[in-house]
Amino acid sequence: MISPKFRSMLKGESVIRKMNSQGNAIAEKIGAENVFDFSIGNPSVPAPENLNAVFEELLTGMDSVLLHGYSESHGILEVRKQIAASLQKRFGIPFSYRDIFMTSGACAAMAHAVRAVASPGEEIITFAPYFPEYKPYIEGAGVTLKIIPADTESFQINFDLLEQEISEKTAAVLINTPNNPSGVVYSTETVKRLAALLTQKSEELGHTIYLISDEPYREIVFAGVDNPFVSDYYADTIICYSFSKSLSLPGERIGYVAVNPACSMAELIIDMCAQISRCIGHNCPSSLIQYVAGRMCGETSDLTVYETNARMLYKELTAMGYTCQEPGGTFYMFPKALEEDAMAFCQKALEYNLVLVPGDSFGCPGYFRISYCVQTEKAERSVEAFKKLAKAYGL
Amino acid sequence: MISPKFRSMLKGESVIRKMNSQGNAIAEKIGAENVFDFSIGNPSVPAPENLNAVFEELLTGMDSVLLHGYSESHGILEVRKQIAASLQKRFGIPFSYRDIFMTSGACAAMAHAVRAVASPGEEIITFAPYFPEYKPYIEGAGVTLKIIPADTESFQINFDLLEQEISEKTAAVLINTPNNPSGVVYSTETVKRLAALLTQKSEELGHTIYLISDEPYREIVFAGVDNPFVSDYYADTIICYSFSKSLSLPGERIGYVAVNPACSMAELIIDMCAQISRCIGHNCPSSLIQYVAGRMCGETSDLTVYETNARMLYKELTAMGYTCQEPGGTFYMFPKALEEDAMAFCQKALEYNLVLVPGDSFGCPGYFRISYCVQTEKAERSVEAFKKLAKAYGL
Repeated sequence: MISPKFRSMLKGESVIRKMNSQGNAIAEKIGAENVFDFSIGNPSVPAPENLNAVFEELLTGMDSVLLHGYSESHGILEVRKQIAASLQKRFGIPFSYRDIFMTSGACAAMAHAVRAVASPGEEIITFAPYFPEYKPYIEGAGVTLKIIPADTESFQINFDLLEQEISEKTAAVLINTPNNPSGVVYSTETVKRLAALLTQKSEELGHTIYLISDEPYREIVFAGVDNPFVSDYYADTIICYSFSKSLSLPGERIGYVAVNPACSMAELIIDMCAQISRCIGHNCPSSLIQYVAGRMCGETSDLTVYETNARMLYKELTAMGYTCQEPGGTFYMFPKALEEDAMAFCQKALEYNLVLVPGDSFGCPGYFRISYCVQTEKAERSVEAFKKLAKAYGL
Repeated sequence: MISPKFRSMLKGESVIRKMNSQGNAIAEKIGAENVFDFSIGNPSVPAPENLNAVFEELLTGMDSVLLHGYSESHGILEVRKQIAASLQKRFGIPFSYRDIFMTSGACAAMAHAVRAVASPGEEIITFAPYFPEYKPYIEGAGVTLKIIPADTESFQINFDLLEQEISEKTAAVLINTPNNPSGVVYSTETVKRLAALLTQKSEELGHTIYLISDEPYREIVFAGVDNPFVSDYYADTIICYSFSKSLSLPGERIGYVAVNPACSMAELIIDMCAQISRCIGHNCPSSLIQYVAGRMCGETSDLTVYETNARMLYKELTAMGYTCQEPGGTFYMFPKALEEDAMAFCQKALEYNLVLVPGDSFGCPGYFRISYCVQTEKAERSVEAFKKLAKAYGL
């Protein structure tokens, strides 16, 4: 009978989409070029220039039945080898194809990782501000998501609160660095301290607490920013990766689970992923797109626009009185709203054609997210609007 | 902690894969050309000739950010419209884009359909012989799969057994016509009788029993075979479709859920699919592959080889004494084994380099599946091996 669970989910409206719709309504009146839509995190740069050559080589050079044939359930072996080799080369950890499971983007990677290391009734802990889709991803597996309130001083981790929250029910801790929505990158000190705490707690509790590291923004880190590779510091790390941002291919839904080869039961986890797929209707990403990702896994689009926009907006906004942690990567920043109610603040911002997202849905009320994955010219024009908005609040 | 549920699934071995491995082991010794591997249902014909032109047009003609950008959660609107128009044109039912939800193949379509109309604790009924992956697909949603034993006379439906099995727990009935593994197509009479029974039972029970129609072989039906479009006969039909077989693109994982517009709560079901996606890590098939499917949804590969093989093998096998229902479509046939234990029979067949799959895992012991998606030349050469096998059993 019609599922009451999924039916009731229809009532929940994404605040991001709601703001985006309001922005679109304004755009219809005054033209899209006059609306500063910072609501959606959609890469604004094209895929790398050689992408089409890679597609052509595959489409004309490979046998159709082989190219478009069923992938093995773990993903195409050649592609898994290419990704393992790339990770090994870049980060020095001896990943092999046995540690890689191909997925339809980071969302599917999370769906597999969560089910591999947590059962219904167990808990996964994450930190505000957090990507709101974590809730359905994790609760969809019957697992409880526990949120540690944000450390709004630094947007690193509040370790005291984390320590209090870890219990015998804790199956995993989930981090996202560089972070959506704060734009902050966890420092080496933070990652080390997290690793030490998880090691200590795993011993005390007598079971491994896995670290699920959601890394779609790993390649978007600005010059001079400390950007530790999480798996270097904690053996029991499960990486969830997507090529969405690095190759500007978000619609192609291509990513992977990579388990640190030093992780306890690494091979078991990868094999379990193939069983999880059968139960959630996953069954591998597109074979063509897998081949493309394998051939391009060391490359990125030209991502410099994000750093240019970040530097400029941070400088301008803080100069006019906004409070903000400087972003170290991603294409997001997360300033403090100019009134307590960030929802009301974002509604006010619409009057100046600024489409912003209140922090409430990221578990961090009083702040707002700017997705500056837009042309720099547009980001520059938005400065005047931010000024007017600040002025409306007496800054 | 490491999931006991998915860990225990690692012990189960697919009989299809086991037979395929045994076949591969023989191939290593005597050469693949001498092994008649009928184990795997992988399309053997290339994708349509104009496929690469469609890819090229998209890759060079469309803006990269748009082409590879995020799809809407229901699928790309243009593609949903193309598919709805194609269905409407072919079958006369007024499908609109609102009735179409794009999925990563039929497996993902099933994962969505099952969760939309059945909750944990409820039941879905299907008929032996059945595709063995139905079990994880349905049990992965917490729903119980009930199997009606095969009517081995005709491989249509045993309605007496079905009527006994329907209860207040029955959320849906799942059919697969043309059928894997029997190759049989349900007749108009069967579909009409099924529709009448479900209508009657839905009324009696006071809730709609949905009909989930898994149709990946819809386009592979042989000349002169009665092939009713299920949705024509029962309004509450949910189609699960894949382009795997029709376009020979199994690895591209592209398909859809199509809800009969006359179905109760049709739009609700489609909207719920987008919520289900969030909970199972689905999030749309590749956008490029969606565009390709939209442009090619009325076409097929050259599928004639399957009919040629079917006619030839059916004629030869029945002439030498095998009992078999004549296949009406697909690239499977399902003869009776020459001893009671089909497992033992398939092991015996290996001695003649014939790789067959016992019917036990399809819920139909005593029979075996031949996947004749091979070159006709090879199918012809296999006849001698089938003769020797028959002779070994005294035929």
